[in-house]
Amino acid sequence: MDLNSDLGEGFGVWRLGDDDALLTIVTSANVACGFHAGDPPTMRRVSARAGERGVRVGAQVSYRDLAGFGRRRIDVPVAELVDELRYQIGALGAFGPVVYVKPHGALYNTAAVDPGHASAVVMAAAASGELPVLCQPGSVLAGLAAERGLRVVAEGFADRGYLPDGRLVPRSEPGALVTDVAAVTARAVRMAVDGVVEAIDGTVIPMPIESLCVHGDTPGAVDMARAVRAALTDAGVPVRAFV
Amino acid sequence: MDLNSDLGEGFGVWRLGDDDALLTIVTSANVACGFHAGDPPTMRRVSARAGERGVRVGAQVSYRDLAGFGRRRIDVPVAELVDELRYQIGALGAFGPVVYVKPHGALYNTAAVDPGHASAVVMAAAASGELPVLCQPGSVLAGLAAERGLRVVAEGFADRGYLPDGRLVPRSEPGALVTDVAAVTARAVRMAVDGVVEAIDGTVIPMPIESLCVHGDTPGAVDMARAVRAALTDAGVPVRAFV
Amino acid sequence: MDLNSDLGEGFGVWRLGDDDALLTIVTSANVACGFHAGDPPTMRRVSARAGERGVRVGAQVSYRDLAGFGRRRIDVPVAELVDELRYQIGALGAFGPVVYVKPHGALYNTAAVDPGHASAVVMAAAASGELPVLCQPGSVLAGLAAERGLRVVAEGFADRGYLPDGRLVPRSEPGALVTDVAAVTARAVRMAVDGVVEAIDGTVIPMPIESLCVHGDTPGAVDMARAVRAALTDAGVPVRAFV
Amino acid sequence: MDLNSDLGEGFGVWRLGDDDALLTIVTSANVACGFHAGDPPTMRRVSARAGERGVRVGAQVSYRDLAGFGRRRIDVPVAELVDELRYQIGALGAFGPVVYVKPHGALYNTAAVDPGHASAVVMAAAASGELPVLCQPGSVLAGLAAERGLRVVAEGFADRGYLPDGRLVPRSEPGALVTDVAAVTARAVRMAVDGVVEAIDGTVIPMPIESLCVHGDTPGAVDMARAVRAALTDAGVPVRAFV
Repeated sequence: MDLNSDLGEGFGVWRLGDDDALLTIVTSANVACGFHAGDPPTMRRVSARAGERGVRVGAQVSYRDLAGFGRRRIDVPVAELVDELRYQIGALGAFGPVVYVKPHGALYNTAAVDPGHASAVVMAAAASGELPVLCQPGSVLAGLAAERGLRVVAEGFADRGYLPDGRLVPRSEPGALVTDVAAVTARAVRMAVDGVVEAIDGTVIPMPIESLCVHGDTPGAVDMARAVRAALTDAGVPVRAFV
Repeated sequence: MDLNSDLGEGFGVWRLGDDDALLTIVTSANVACGFHAGDPPTMRRVSARAGERGVRVGAQVSYRDLAGFGRRRIDVPVAELVDELRYQIGALGAFGPVVYVKPHGALYNTAAVDPGHASAVVMAAAASGELPVLCQPGSVLAGLAAERGLRVVAEGFADRGYLPDGRLVPRSEPGALVTDVAAVTARAVRMAVDGVVEAIDGTVIPMPIESLCVHGDTPGAVDMARAVRAALTDAGVPVRAFV
Repeated sequence: MDLNSDLGEGFGVWRLGDDDALLTIVTSANVACGFHAGDPPTMRRVSARAGERGVRVGAQVSYRDLAGFGRRRIDVPVAELVDELRYQIGALGAFGPVVYVKPHGALYNTAAVDPGHASAVVMAAAASGELPVLCQPGSVLAGLAAERGLRVVAEGFADRGYLPDGRLVPRSEPGALVTDVAAVTARAVRMAVDGVVEAIDGTVIPMPIESLCVHGDTPGAVDMARAVRAALTDAGVPVRAFV
Repeated sequence: MDLNSDLGEGFGVWRLGDDDALLTIVTSANVACGFHAGDPPTMRRVSARAGERGVRVGAQVSYRDLAGFGRRRIDVPVAELVDELRYQIGALGAFGPVVYVKPHGALYNTAAVDPGHASAVVMAAAASGELPVLCQPGSVLAGLAAERGLRVVAEGFADRGYLPDGRLVPRSEPGALVTDVAAVTARAVRMAVDGVVEAIDGTVIPMPIESLCVHGDTPGAVDMARAVRAALTDAGVPVRAFV
C-alpha cells in the first residue's frame, strides 16, 4: 500500500501543514506546483527531501487560483487547461523527477465527474511522459485515463465517509469525516487487506485501492498519518510507493 | 550568425509583437515563461511552431512581475531567484526542448552588472542541464557563466548605440536607438563579418558576437528584422542557430 | 439614451481598445478594476479623462482572473465574491467618483442567470453607496437589484442578435453578431425611439433600455460607435449619461 | 501613546498572526491591502472588528509582491507607485474608514531613505484625503510628509535596538532584537514617558514618538504586546489612538 499526502502547500511567507514530518511517513508526495500554492523554493526543498528519503514526487496540479487555494471550480476551456497543467508539471520537473499526477481541490472534484476537465488531466499527464494518474476509483477521470492507456492509481481515504456507490460523502453532510483514530486505522487496514470499506449505510463495498491519502494540514493530522502507517505495518501490509 | 528575438510576450487575451512573422526570420526564439509575460497556450504554440521551422527555443526568464512586464528590478534573494528561474525553465520545457537561457528586461540589465543576480542566472542555467547563456559580451553575467563552464553566447544589437567601452547607450540618452534601416543592416553586417561596431563617438570597437537580437514589438520591427536577415545573407553570412 | 463602453482593459504593458477615442463618443465608461484587466495607472488616467469630458465612470467588476480576462466562470462562494467586488469598486473609487456597477464577462453572464452571484453583485453595489447596476433587462441580476431597491439601468446591444425571449443569441450560434453599420445604427435608433428590437426570428420584441453598449476592442469598433452616436443624434435622441 | 500592529496579513487559506487577540490590545490596525497580503474577506472582517472595538484602521500599503510578502524592494517608477498605493488605500476604504497610511516591509525601508519612493507614499496619502503617515522619526518619508503638510506620526519599536543616530539596528546585526519582556516594557515606558531610548552603545537618544509598533506574527508576540500595554497603563500613560 502506498501512502500519499499533499505537500508544499505554502506560498512565500505562508506555510500549511508539516511537510518535514509527513515526509517521514508517506511514500508519495503530491507537491503543489504554484497555481493553488507552492513557491519555487518550497518546491525545490520538498523535492530534495523527498528524494533523500525515497519518497516519490507527483505533481499536484490545480486551477490557477492562489486566492482560493484551488478550491473554486474555474471554467477554463479544455485546451487551455491542458496547457496550464503541462506548465505546472514541467515547472515541478525542474526540481527532480515527477512520476505521477494528482489533481487538486476543485479540479479533483470536477475531473471526477466532468469529461472535459478529466480529459484535460489525462492529456496533460500523457503529454508529460505518460505519467500515472492518482485518482478516485470509478471516477470519470479514472475511466478516461485507463482508456488512454495511462496507469490509473486508485486512492482511498480512511478518514472520509463513503456512500454506498463508492463516492465520498460530501463534506457538508453528516458522516463526511471519520475522526476517531481507531476507526480510521481499522478502515485503512480493511481497505488494504480486504479491498473493501464500510459505507455510511453499513454496506460493505469494494474499494480496491493502491494508495491511501493522508492529510497534513489539520490539527492531529501528522499523528493520524503516523498511526495509519503503523497500523498497516502491524497488519503485515508493506507500505511502499506505487511506482 | 544567429538571429534571436523575444517571442510569446502576450498574456491571456493580450498580445505583443508578431510571433508568427518573426518565426519565419529568426533562428532562436527567446520564449517568455509566464513571469513577465507568456501564458501556457502561447508557450505551447510558439514552441510548436518554432520546432516546425527549426527555430531553437530558449527560456526568456524574468523577475516575477506581470504588472511591470519584468522591467522593474526586484531585490529577490539570490537563492530564491535561482529557484524562480529554474521553475520558469522547467515550465517552458513542458512544451519542447529548451536549449538556452536569456534573462529578460530588468533581470538582463541587473545580471549584466550585479554578481548576485548574475550568479542566480548561472546557477539556474547550470541546474537546468548546463544550458548556454545568451547575454551581453563583457557583462558580469558573461564572466560568471564562463567561469562556471557554461557556454556563453554573446549577442549584439544592430539597432542600438554603443558606448566606447562596449556597453549600450542607455535608452534615456541621445544615440540610444538606430532607426534607419540602411544603418542598421550595415551595422549588422559589420558585426557579423568583421566583429566590430562603430561606437557613438566614432571609435570602432570589437564586438565579437554569435547572435544578433532583433525586436518584434515596435512598428516596422518585422520589416527591420527581415532586412537584417536579407543583408546578412547578401553579405554571404550564413544565418543559423548557434546551437 | 446613454452610451456605455468597456474601457481601461489593458494591463501593464498590454493595451486593448482605443480608450481615448471612445471617451469622445460614450457617456458612461465601464472601467476595469484590476481583476480581469486594469492597472492602477490606467484606472487613474481613464478616470481623469472621463472626468474632463463629463463621461460617467462605473466599476466594471469581475472574477479574479487576469489569465482568462474574466471570461471564465469561477465558483467563488457568494460572501467572498461580495468582498472581492467591493474591493474593486473601492479601488476604482481612489481615482474619482464611481457612480454605477457593471459586471464583466463571465460574471455578467453568470449573474444574469444565477441568483447567488447575482445577489453578490447586488450586495456589493448596495454596500458601495447604493450604486445603480447596469445589466441585461429581464436578467436575474436586474430582478434582484430592483428588489433590493437599487436603480436598474437596462442596456441593449445594437450589434448583437436577440432571441424572441429577449436573451442574446449565444456567440457560438449564427446570427449572434450584426456587423453591417446601417443595420446596427438602425437597430440602435429603433431601440432608443420605439423601445423595441427585431429578434432573430423576425418578431419585434420590447427592449426598453436606458443605455446602449458599444464595443471598443475590435477592428472598426470605434467607427461603429461613432456611427451609432451620430444616428441617435440625427434621430433626435439626446445622448447623455443615465446618471 | 498609540499602539499599532500589522493585521490581516494572511491571504486566502493562509493565516499569519492572531488578528483577533491583537485587536483587543492595539489602538491602531495597519491592515494589509492585497498587494503583499490581505484578501478582501479578511480586510472586511478586520475592518469590522476594529470598528466595533474603536480601533483605528490604516492602510498598510506595499509593493505588488505576494510571493515575497512585500519584503523585496521593487524599482517601480514613482508615478506608477503612487497609483498602486492609491489603489490599495481605495480598496481598503471599501470596508470602512481608513484614517492613516503606513508603508509595509521593503517599501517602509525604502521610503525611509529614498526620496522617490518616499514622495510616492506622500502623494498617495495626500491624494487619498490628506491622510496622516505613520513612519520612522527622522526618515526621508517623515521629512517629505511634513513638508507636504501631512500629519506625521512618529513610531518607535520597543523590541528593536537603535543605533546612536536613531536608526534601527539592521536585523542582520547583533542587538537588532530585544526579546526580554522586562526590557521591552521598560523601553516602551521610557519612550512614552521621557521620549528617549537607550541606543545600542548605551547613549540615551531622543525618540519622540506618538505610536509604538507591536508585532503579532512571532511566538509570544501577543503576550508581549499585552505586557507592553499593561506597562504603559501602569505607568500612567493613556493608551489611545493617535487620531
